[in-house]
Amino acid sequence: MKIKTVFRVLALICLVVSFAMIPSGCIALYDRSRDARAFLFSILTGIFTSVILSIMSDSKDSHSAIGIREGVGITGFSWAAASFIGALPYWLSGCVPSYTDAFFETMSGFTTTGATIFSKIEALPRGILLWRSLTHWMGGMGIIVLSLAVLPFLGVSGMEMYKAEVPGVTAEKLTPRLHQTAIYLWGVYVALTLIETVLLWFGGMTLFDAFAHSCSTIATGGFSTKNNSIAYFTSPYIQWVLIIFMFASGVNFSLYFVILKKKFREFFHDEEFCSYFAITVFAALAMSLSLYFAGNFAGIEHMLRRTFFHVVSVMTTTGFIVEDYNLWPEFTKFLFIVLMFIGASGGSTGGGCKVSRFIILGRQLKAETLRLLHPKAIIKSRFNGKTIARSTLDSSAAFFVLYMLILSVSTLITTAFGIDLLTAFTGVLTCLSNVGPGLNLLGPVENFAWLPSFVKWLFSFCMLAGRLELFAVFLLFVPGTYKK
Amino acid sequence: MKIKTVFRVLALICLVVSFAMIPSGCIALYDRSRDARAFLFSILTGIFTSVILSIMSDSKDSHSAIGIREGVGITGFSWAAASFIGALPYWLSGCVPSYTDAFFETMSGFTTTGATIFSKIEALPRGILLWRSLTHWMGGMGIIVLSLAVLPFLGVSGMEMYKAEVPGVTAEKLTPRLHQTAIYLWGVYVALTLIETVLLWFGGMTLFDAFAHSCSTIATGGFSTKNNSIAYFTSPYIQWVLIIFMFASGVNFSLYFVILKKKFREFFHDEEFCSYFAITVFAALAMSLSLYFAGNFAGIEHMLRRTFFHVVSVMTTTGFIVEDYNLWPEFTKFLFIVLMFIGASGGSTGGGCKVSRFIILGRQLKAETLRLLHPKAIIKSRFNGKTIARSTLDSSAAFFVLYMLILSVSTLITTAFGIDLLTAFTGVLTCLSNVGPGLNLLGPVENFAWLPSFVKWLFSFCMLAGRLELFAVFLLFVPGTYKK
Repeated sequence: MKIKTVFRVLALICLVVSFAMIPSGCIALYDRSRDARAFLFSILTGIFTSVILSIMSDSKDSHSAIGIREGVGITGFSWAAASFIGALPYWLSGCVPSYTDAFFETMSGFTTTGATIFSKIEALPRGILLWRSLTHWMGGMGIIVLSLAVLPFLGVSGMEMYKAEVPGVTAEKLTPRLHQTAIYLWGVYVALTLIETVLLWFGGMTLFDAFAHSCSTIATGGFSTKNNSIAYFTSPYIQWVLIIFMFASGVNFSLYFVILKKKFREFFHDEEFCSYFAITVFAALAMSLSLYFAGNFAGIEHMLRRTFFHVVSVMTTTGFIVEDYNLWPEFTKFLFIVLMFIGASGGSTGGGCKVSRFIILGRQLKAETLRLLHPKAIIKSRFNGKTIARSTLDSSAAFFVLYMLILSVSTLITTAFGIDLLTAFTGVLTCLSNVGPGLNLLGPVENFAWLPSFVKWLFSFCMLAGRLELFAVFLLFVPGTYKK
Repeated sequence: MKIKTVFRVLALICLVVSFAMIPSGCIALYDRSRDARAFLFSILTGIFTSVILSIMSDSKDSHSAIGIREGVGITGFSWAAASFIGALPYWLSGCVPSYTDAFFETMSGFTTTGATIFSKIEALPRGILLWRSLTHWMGGMGIIVLSLAVLPFLGVSGMEMYKAEVPGVTAEKLTPRLHQTAIYLWGVYVALTLIETVLLWFGGMTLFDAFAHSCSTIATGGFSTKNNSIAYFTSPYIQWVLIIFMFASGVNFSLYFVILKKKFREFFHDEEFCSYFAITVFAALAMSLSLYFAGNFAGIEHMLRRTFFHVVSVMTTTGFIVEDYNLWPEFTKFLFIVLMFIGASGGSTGGGCKVSRFIILGRQLKAETLRLLHPKAIIKSRFNGKTIARSTLDSSAAFFVLYMLILSVSTLITTAFGIDLLTAFTGVLTCLSNVGPGLNLLGPVENFAWLPSFVKWLFSFCMLAGRLELFAVFLLFVPGTYKK
């Protein structure tokens, strides 16, 4: 790994994070709130760190291409670096007395998880609230560029299939047309955010709340500006707008290019989109039936709204809440666990294992069954009309195994702290899939503040690992990554 | 599928099951117990069924080879047929009023699961108790022949690697030297059973109890003749004997040929054996530490005995119990779940995913990581010095996916009956891995009698699917299997 190349990019990221604090700092100043000074110090620290990193990086080296090892280093360390700097406002303002908690909250923000250590969110100053939402928004933007324009070229686990779908990226090196792709993706991302902000504002939210919730939705984050999350906004209109935009954020963003090109047929025939849609509808209807038989029913619209809301919220790994589903029937709780595990589409801002990987694994299962009956036949699986490459099959299976491994080991460690099984398991799962709330003591109306510090760092690691499709983080622990 | 060929084998199996009831019937007669007539009727029904099946099968066809489709049919239907006949004594004797329960108990026996619907086991007549243990013993014998001599040649999921290890089987067809292999395996199986019986008898058990527990141990079943399972036998000697023989039954039986050939070095260098041993020791020590810190400690021997006992009992999927580990710390409970999932070695009487499959998946994970760093290198994984075939990698991954799929869907169905998450999940897992006890309401001191009938049939299906390495059962639902 050319560590100096990595430093150069990290310097840029620290700078971007610092500048991104400026709007929050301005609001804090405008409100004459005590956190204005915290933002100032944080911005200065960020710039200072950026300068140090720039000095440590080799400017002569600036035109050398970014290879696989550098890609891994940049990917893995940039989220961590952003979180270290981004945690400062919480900590310096005194809103979060412990740096561990501040780091947890920031990592949860940048990884678009939405797990929070705050119980009294409405008591926070507006500058901090804005910064909290912006960490989501920037993290979501980062992950789209990463998953559609960086990871496919690192060959990371099942992301290869997106290579052909993103316009502008064709070569084996990352840099040449990355800018252009990024700008396309930004366009869609910003447009969705603005449209949702207007629609929510129109529905009765304040502009501030509308923007903050918009950032959380499009990034599939889950931070709200209210203690009770979306339960605060009882308007069915607002809730349906959120459902639609959460769903839209869980769609592969490269499909929006297809729409821009007016290839609607292609959009609605995309196998991942169809499965994603089908799972959503099926899960919401099953959940409605389950609630109905449990006697928990007050009208069809109300029922569909709450089940669709939570299915979409959990499956897209957003984590908004309108009701404490910890109190729902056991069937719906297990369904939530399954949805957390599946996650949204690849190339979206959502987390989890991704629908596309399950399609690939399902096809492999079918091929394997056919192979048993026809041992000599050559069976090829297809996805969206294209033959699934050997390497994609292998890396999807490896992803699945690594996911289960991290999930089991982290749960074991968490239970060793005396935390009950269901809380520990769903806590790890919700972090690894970047959802936000878990079940039981980490359920929808609980928060993560009570966890032991060590578990908070472990959960932060899980959020990072899940966000970066596991391998980009796993590789950081492989000595070979650091060889030249 | 040549259905008549399948009928021919099923007729044989019904006959074997009927004859196997004779000893139990004799004991019932000797005890002048009311179940003697039940055994007589059951034996007659079995013979009658066998004759019907024989008539339906085509005797002219008897020399044609058994192909893949017939192999699948025989494998899948023979356990079911045996259970339908084997359930009769329970039902006809009135010991089990419901046929569903009787079938569940018998399936649990033949699949060597050990999940029981009885709460007052000591109240059962000896004939029934002997039959209960014999279902384990016969099931264990069946599974060894199946996993070492049949499934590898059907190409079922990761079992291919045993092809070379079993002496006497080389051709692509099953029949030629199957008899010889089966006789070798029988020898080891019978020898282990007799040695354990003598050792347990010597330790103070009655000959009847010693033989019954021996059958349960070697088959990694778990049925006991006592209400409190092994907790009844407080002798440390008896418990250690059981630990050693449970562990031995979780070893790949083809390794015992290696010992008979005095190739001890090869035995102790077998990668699966080493991992199996290492996991056992590691888990037992971790569990001891956890109990120690929970203040649950009364001497080192006592601690090691209870942790080794339960780790070996759960990992080999036997399911014997000396203590209610439902009351142990959360960490140990999750560790039990992980051990249930891993299971014993391939080619043993134990269930679960098997240690060998995890080794293969681990190697694939490693290869995948190296491939990311060296995209153009050709990386081959090895197992016991041999390159792991492409097909073995694929089928192991597919097995893992199918396992998770059946686990999730069955848990969803079970929770739909209002059964709590932990009970439902561990209930399905314990059946799918053929362990016996689960956690919570299906924990070590509970039984399966209270479950709704539908769930009992579902769990019976899970036991069967798990026992037959999933694919042999999965294929029964694929229309292509029944084509000629």
